[in-house]
Amino acid sequence: MTMKVYLSGEIHTDWRDQITEGVEQARLDVTFDSPVTDHDASDDCGVAIMGAEDKKFWHDNKGANLNAIRTRHGIQNADIVVVRFGEKYKQWNAAFDAGYAAALGKSLIVMHGPDHQHPLKEVDAAALAVVETPLQVVQILNYVINGVLPD
Amino acid sequence: MTMKVYLSGEIHTDWRDQITEGVEQARLDVTFDSPVTDHDASDDCGVAIMGAEDKKFWHDNKGANLNAIRTRHGIQNADIVVVRFGEKYKQWNAAFDAGYAAALGKSLIVMHGPDHQHPLKEVDAAALAVVETPLQVVQILNYVINGVLPD
Amino acid sequence: MTMKVYLSGEIHTDWRDQITEGVEQARLDVTFDSPVTDHDASDDCGVAIMGAEDKKFWHDNKGANLNAIRTRHGIQNADIVVVRFGEKYKQWNAAFDAGYAAALGKSLIVMHGPDHQHPLKEVDAAALAVVETPLQVVQILNYVINGVLPD
Amino acid sequence: MTMKVYLSGEIHTDWRDQITEGVEQARLDVTFDSPVTDHDASDDCGVAIMGAEDKKFWHDNKGANLNAIRTRHGIQNADIVVVRFGEKYKQWNAAFDAGYAAALGKSLIVMHGPDHQHPLKEVDAAALAVVETPLQVVQILNYVINGVLPD
Amino acid sequence: MTMKVYLSGEIHTDWRDQITEGVEQARLDVTFDSPVTDHDASDDCGVAIMGAEDKKFWHDNKGANLNAIRTRHGIQNADIVVVRFGEKYKQWNAAFDAGYAAALGKSLIVMHGPDHQHPLKEVDAAALAVVETPLQVVQILNYVINGVLPD
Amino acid sequence: MTMKVYLSGEIHTDWRDQITEGVEQARLDVTFDSPVTDHDASDDCGVAIMGAEDKKFWHDNKGANLNAIRTRHGIQNADIVVVRFGEKYKQWNAAFDAGYAAALGKSLIVMHGPDHQHPLKEVDAAALAVVETPLQVVQILNYVINGVLPD
Amino acid sequence: MTMKVYLSGEIHTDWRDQITEGVEQARLDVTFDSPVTDHDASDDCGVAIMGAEDKKFWHDNKGANLNAIRTRHGIQNADIVVVRFGEKYKQWNAAFDAGYAAALGKSLIVMHGPDHQHPLKEVDAAALAVVETPLQVVQILNYVINGVLPD
Amino acid sequence: MTMKVYLSGEIHTDWRDQITEGVEQARLDVTFDSPVTDHDASDDCGVAIMGAEDKKFWHDNKGANLNAIRTRHGIQNADIVVVRFGEKYKQWNAAFDAGYAAALGKSLIVMHGPDHQHPLKEVDAAALAVVETPLQVVQILNYVINGVLPD
Repeated sequence: MTMKVYLSGEIHTDWRDQITEGVEQARLDVTFDSPVTDHDASDDCGVAIMGAEDKKFWHDNKGANLNAIRTRHGIQNADIVVVRFGEKYKQWNAAFDAGYAAALGKSLIVMHGPDHQHPLKEVDAAALAVVETPLQVVQILNYVINGVLPD
Repeated sequence: MTMKVYLSGEIHTDWRDQITEGVEQARLDVTFDSPVTDHDASDDCGVAIMGAEDKKFWHDNKGANLNAIRTRHGIQNADIVVVRFGEKYKQWNAAFDAGYAAALGKSLIVMHGPDHQHPLKEVDAAALAVVETPLQVVQILNYVINGVLPD
Repeated sequence: MTMKVYLSGEIHTDWRDQITEGVEQARLDVTFDSPVTDHDASDDCGVAIMGAEDKKFWHDNKGANLNAIRTRHGIQNADIVVVRFGEKYKQWNAAFDAGYAAALGKSLIVMHGPDHQHPLKEVDAAALAVVETPLQVVQILNYVINGVLPD
Repeated sequence: MTMKVYLSGEIHTDWRDQITEGVEQARLDVTFDSPVTDHDASDDCGVAIMGAEDKKFWHDNKGANLNAIRTRHGIQNADIVVVRFGEKYKQWNAAFDAGYAAALGKSLIVMHGPDHQHPLKEVDAAALAVVETPLQVVQILNYVINGVLPD
Repeated sequence: MTMKVYLSGEIHTDWRDQITEGVEQARLDVTFDSPVTDHDASDDCGVAIMGAEDKKFWHDNKGANLNAIRTRHGIQNADIVVVRFGEKYKQWNAAFDAGYAAALGKSLIVMHGPDHQHPLKEVDAAALAVVETPLQVVQILNYVINGVLPD
Repeated sequence: MTMKVYLSGEIHTDWRDQITEGVEQARLDVTFDSPVTDHDASDDCGVAIMGAEDKKFWHDNKGANLNAIRTRHGIQNADIVVVRFGEKYKQWNAAFDAGYAAALGKSLIVMHGPDHQHPLKEVDAAALAVVETPLQVVQILNYVINGVLPD
Repeated sequence: MTMKVYLSGEIHTDWRDQITEGVEQARLDVTFDSPVTDHDASDDCGVAIMGAEDKKFWHDNKGANLNAIRTRHGIQNADIVVVRFGEKYKQWNAAFDAGYAAALGKSLIVMHGPDHQHPLKEVDAAALAVVETPLQVVQILNYVINGVLPD
Repeated sequence: MTMKVYLSGEIHTDWRDQITEGVEQARLDVTFDSPVTDHDASDDCGVAIMGAEDKKFWHDNKGANLNAIRTRHGIQNADIVVVRFGEKYKQWNAAFDAGYAAALGKSLIVMHGPDHQHPLKEVDAAALAVVETPLQVVQILNYVINGVLPD
C-alpha cells in the first residue's frame, strides 16, 4: 500500500524532515509533497517571473496564485494531508488548506501544541487524528500502512 | 435572480446586520445563512446536549462537530460565501471555511482590514472579491443581481 | 433555514414520532423522510407487486430493491441522516445506511444505548453527533437551526 | 486487466488468506487491500499513538478514526469491495463499509452463510454477487479477469 | 414526498397515460416528464427549425441532438426513470436512456413483456424493479411514497 | 417542464429581448439569466466598488472576477446555455462560456452568422443546436418544452 | 500519449481482433479492454459459480450482474468507448453501454452498417465518430494519437 | 513531483517547442500533450477517415468532433493547461479550451501579448498566471516543481 502525503503549514522548523526521515527509517511506502518552503521565494515568485507590481496586494496576489498551482496539485493528489500549526504567525493559509482538504474528503491529520487547542477546535474536529509531534505522524503512517504499533 | 449568501467568520461586530439591512434597503433577492453567533452557546452546545466532558479537547470537539452540521449546510447551499476576518483572535475557523468553500467552487468574497493583507494573501487569491466594509458587499450583491453600480 | 432529515434504522419503537412531535412543538422548519416502517409490507412489497418467488433470497431481493428506491431518495435528498440502532436484531441495513450517508458527505447523527457503544465505534466515529434519546435529536435540531440551547 | 480488491469485514478466520492464495495459484493480476486484522492493535491504535483516554467512547473514537484513514483509502481505491459477514459479533462496521462502497459505485461482493440471508437482504441487494465461500470469490475474479469458468 | 419520474421508451401505446391516470387516482405526489411522443415531430424537428439536409444521417443527427436537450434534462432531473420496451422496433434509444440513467445512479424501473427477458438481461440487472404493466408502476409508486401495498 | 436558460455572448444587439419576447408570446415556462449587458458597468464594476487601479490589467481583473460571480451562477444553474457570437469584437469571453458550459454537461445552443462557421467549428461541434436567429431559439424552446414545431 | 479503449457490443465477428491487429501494426500506444466474448460463458457465469436457478430470469440476473463487474470497470477506466452494432440480435446491452459511457463523458465511437442508421440516430448523435469498419477505428486512433491521416 | 501539462491554442509558431526544450534543459519532470498542430490534417481528419461531405459545416463538424477526442483527453488528464493566444485569427477554440479547463478546476496559465489584454480579461481572470513568453512558462514550471526562481 502506497500512501501519498501532503505536508502543509508551518515552514520555519524542520518537522517535515523529521517525518520524512522517520518514514525512511521505518521503510514505509510513502511519497511526500509540500509547498515551497523557502519563505522569500514563496513571497516573491509571482513578480520575479511575471513582473513587478507597485502595490503589495498584487505582488502577493501574483505569488499566491502561482503557489496555488503547486498547493492544489499536492492536496488533490494526496491520500493524507498533514497540516501543522506552529507557535507564531497567523497561518491562515494552513487553515485554508485544511478546509480545502476536508471539502475534498481527504484524510486530515492536524499537528499543533496544546496552546492552540481551543482556537483550532473546528479544524481538529474535521481531522481523523490530532497530534503534537512529527514522531506521532510517523507512528500513524506505520500503523495505517503496516498495522504496527509503537513499542 | 436569487442569491444565497453564507456569512462566515468574525462574530463580535455587527457586520452581518449591516449587510442584511443594506440588502433589505436595496430590495435585493438574497437569502442569508450564517453560523451561530452566540459565542458561549457555540462553545458549549456539544456538552449541553450530549453530556459534559472532563477534557477541554472533547468538550470542544463535541461542540465543533455540532456546529459543523450548520456550517457545512450553509456553505454547501450557498452561491456566495463571504468570510470576514476581524481584528482579533486566531480565526482559523474562518480560514478553514474559506478553504472549504473554495474547494467546492463557491464564489468567495473576503472582507478584512489592510493590516491583514499579507497573511491573508492565499485566501484573498482564492476570492473573486476582496473588500473592507459591509457596504461593499451590499454594492457587490446589487451589481451582481441588478447590474447597478453605486453612484 | 430548512433542514431535511432522514430517519433511518430501528422500526419497532416510536422514536420517529417523538422526534417529529418535538420538532413540531419547537416549531422548527424541518421536513422528515423515513423508510416504510410497516415491517410486513417492507418484507413483502416486492412479491406483492411483481409476483411470488419460491426462494426466500429472491423474495427478499425484490423487496429490498423496491425499498431502495425510497431509501436512497431519502438519504440523497437529506441534509441530516439520523440512524437509530435499537436493542434487538442485526440491523445491518441501519449500518449500511450510515455508511451510504457518510460516503455522500451527509451530516450523520447516530442514536443508540450505551450497550452498543463498542461495536458501533466506527459508525459513531463517522458521525457529527452521537446521542441516546429522541429528545437530544430535537435539541440538536433546535440548536442547529435557531442557535438555542436547552434550559 | 488489473483488479484492485478490498477485503472488508470479519477478521477472525483465514478467509482473506484463502482468497489471496487462490488468486496466486490462478496467477490473476489482482492487488489486495484490507483493514488491520490484528483485533487488539485495531482497538488500541488511537490511544497507543495519541495518548490514553479515561472514557471508552473516546478511546474507541480515536482508534476508529485512525483505522478510517486506512479503510477509506482501501475502499476508495478499490475496483471491487468484498465484504464478509461471519457467524459472530455485531459486525456493523462491515455493513457500514458495504454502504460506503455502494454509495461510491464500487462493485460489491457480499459473502455470508445462509443463516444471515434475511437480515442482510438490503446489503445483498446492493451487491453484484452474493457468495458463501472464498473459493467463489476466486472463481468470480478468474471469470471477470479471464472469462474462465470453473470446471 | 414528491417523486419526479421520467417515462422513457416506447411511444406507440398509451402506457404513459395509464400510469399518469393511475397516479392521479391514487393522488400521489408525482411529477412526470417524457420525450416528445409525436413520432414525426421527433424525427423532423431538427430540419424543421434549423434547415433541411440532403443526407438522412444529418437530418437525423440534427433531430436527435435537439431531442437530447429534452431527454437529458428529463433524466438528469428524475428520481426514478421508467423505461418501457415495446413489442416492435429496435428501441436502441430506450436502452441508451437506461444506460444513461444507470450511470447517473437514478432508480431504474424497466417494463417489458416476457419475450424480451433474455436480450434485456443486462438492462434488467441494472434496475431496481422489472415489471410488465403500467399498473405495476403505479403500485410501485404508491408503495414507495405511501408504504401502501395493493389489496 | 421549466427550463432555465442562460443567454451568453454578444451584448450590442437586442437578441436577448427577441428571445424573451418570443418565449412570452408562446407562453413557455422558461426563466432567463444573462450577464450584465451594460458594457461600461461591466468594465468598471470592480474599481467602482473596490477602488481604482493604475494598471489596466488589474482594473480589468477586478471587474472580470466580479462579473464571474454572476456568470458562473448563471451557467451552473442553467439547463440550456445559449451563446451568441456577433459580427464584431474578439468575443473570447463568449467562447470561454461555451467551453465552461460544455465541461459542465449543459445543453449548448450556439448562434452565429455563416461567416463565422469555420472558426467556430469546435464550439459548434460541442453544441446540441447551431442557429442563426433568435426566432430559432424560441422555436427550439417551444419544441423542447411542448413538442410543437413551427408551422 | 496512451489511450485506453473499451470495445463494447457485438461478439460474433472478429472486429475486435481486426482493431487490435491494426493498432499493433501501427505501433500505437493503446490498451484494450472488452466484455467476455464467449457467449455461453457469459450467459452461464452466474449460476456456474453461485448455484443454479429454476427461473431463467434469475439465471440471467446472476450472470448479468457478474458481467457488470467487468463491463463497468472497463467503461469507467476507458478514454474511448467503441460500441459496435452487428447485423443480428437485439443488442440492447450495446446501446445500454453507449448510454452509460455517454453519461460518464467518455469519448464514444459507434460502429454499424448503413441499415441501422435511423434506429441508431440517438446513439450516433452522442458519439464523436460514427464508422462502419474496424479499419476506420484504427485510423481514428492513429490520427488521435499521432496526428497521422491515412494515405 | 510530475506535472502533466496540456499546451492549447495557437499552432503557427514554435512556442510549444520552446517550452519543451526549456523544460528539458531544466530537467523538469513534466509530460506534455497538445492538439494536432498540422493545420490541414486537423481540418480534414473527419472526412479523410469517415467520408466526404458536401457541406462545409459537416466537413468541419466531423473533424472538430474527432479532434475533441484528443483535446478533451488532454485537458482532462492535465494538471496544468497553458493556453496561448497568437496575433491572428479568431482563436475561439483556444478560449473554449480555457473555459473547459476552468470548469474542470485545472490550473490555467494564459499566454498572450499586451494587445489582447482587454478582450482576454475574463480568460485571464480565470487563470493562476498570465504570461507573455514561453520562457515564463518554463520558469513557472521550474518554480512550481523545484521552488527555484530565475536568477
